[in-house]
Amino acid sequence: MKNLIVASTSTIYSGSYLDYLTEALAELFSETDEILFIPYARPGGISHDEYTQKASEAFKKLNKKIVGLHSFQDPVKAIKEATGIFTGGGNTFVLVNALHKNQVMQPLREVIFNGTPYLGTSAGSNICGVSMKTTNDMPIVYPPSFKTLGVIPFNVNPHYLDPDPNSEHMGETRETRIKEFHTQNDIPVVGLREGSWLRVKDSSIVLKGEHSARFFKQGEKPVEVSASSSLSQLTL
Amino acid sequence: MKNLIVASTSTIYSGSYLDYLTEALAELFSETDEILFIPYARPGGISHDEYTQKASEAFKKLNKKIVGLHSFQDPVKAIKEATGIFTGGGNTFVLVNALHKNQVMQPLREVIFNGTPYLGTSAGSNICGVSMKTTNDMPIVYPPSFKTLGVIPFNVNPHYLDPDPNSEHMGETRETRIKEFHTQNDIPVVGLREGSWLRVKDSSIVLKGEHSARFFKQGEKPVEVSASSSLSQLTL
Repeated sequence: MKNLIVASTSTIYSGSYLDYLTEALAELFSETDEILFIPYARPGGISHDEYTQKASEAFKKLNKKIVGLHSFQDPVKAIKEATGIFTGGGNTFVLVNALHKNQVMQPLREVIFNGTPYLGTSAGSNICGVSMKTTNDMPIVYPPSFKTLGVIPFNVNPHYLDPDPNSEHMGETRETRIKEFHTQNDIPVVGLREGSWLRVKDSSIVLKGEHSARFFKQGEKPVEVSASSSLSQLTL
Repeated sequence: MKNLIVASTSTIYSGSYLDYLTEALAELFSETDEILFIPYARPGGISHDEYTQKASEAFKKLNKKIVGLHSFQDPVKAIKEATGIFTGGGNTFVLVNALHKNQVMQPLREVIFNGTPYLGTSAGSNICGVSMKTTNDMPIVYPPSFKTLGVIPFNVNPHYLDPDPNSEHMGETRETRIKEFHTQNDIPVVGLREGSWLRVKDSSIVLKGEHSARFFKQGEKPVEVSASSSLSQLTL
């Protein structure tokens, strides 16, 4: 019953907010006029109202009404009754902290398993994985747990970046970081480049967008998965 | 009584492990022949033995013996009796997790306040701050707390990187991340570029190395602090 778009980023270089996803979103949300927006990740610290407004403007061209989860007295009820959900990007620690504190992590998981169409971008995609342990974000708040929705059978690393061969910087590359993750965890990781997204329908997971993705499994060499191919097999 | 070197990185581009710090380390550890090494951060997942061996080789030219904290049955006693301490870089989450689980965070704080010479590089510098909330590392394990030593009155962001004006990547710049930190926290942050270190003696904190550092205070514009200047004033 699952029906999700798990996108690396909301915005690609020289594009505007969500525009590269327009067609895909029209299809995902074809059966609803109203989308519940989860603004908890607060990119750049903006308010929930400001963030909801931003999402609202982007969905105008699809004739969808956006309502912010923060505007409901009972967020669990709002999640349960939603006919479409979008979690925007920002800081994954802030997002996961708020989801746990408002006790909506489990209800959100349930409605996604029951088929409520879901869009995640960046931090909103990170939480689709088994844990948030492959986020790129700074740990600016301490959430009660790193456990996330687990609606896909691996973790996502959004905004995946290839190593820059000309860099003189000594900080870890993204690939090194994910390899370090695998010294402590056995969950596979999909490095999603900006412009890529996963289209999840039931147990089918297909890589969309023009880029390949990088797939990391504990103890194995990372592999490139080409655009339009299925990831369901890889994770079995 | 405090006596520390808080370094952005262990290794600068085209250099070898710790070599750019040789003179500074000879001075810091002038009164001890043996240095207790904390290998918990496990860069790239290497074993405590391997990491201790690496530190050992680097300190050979200074005629210092390195002993790994993991080789002691009673790590608290080892910390209390050490005449010099070095915490190497790696993953800050792994490091902080191990420090808390082995209950050495508080003893380490006490001996540093009492004057035991201390060297931190990268993750080993992150823990000198009030919290580890400005680390660049991936949250590959869930530590019991983000609180760290607080032996300097601000947080450190090691491997500080200026925004790349030519980048087409949409992930957050380091400056954006630190600004997001300040939407949730009021602790000042020093962005230390690779090749820079802080020389802490009692309440004096001086920026060493050839680069300036970037100083971030909540609600204020970031400022550049020139090499060789004091940071003690800034944080009052």
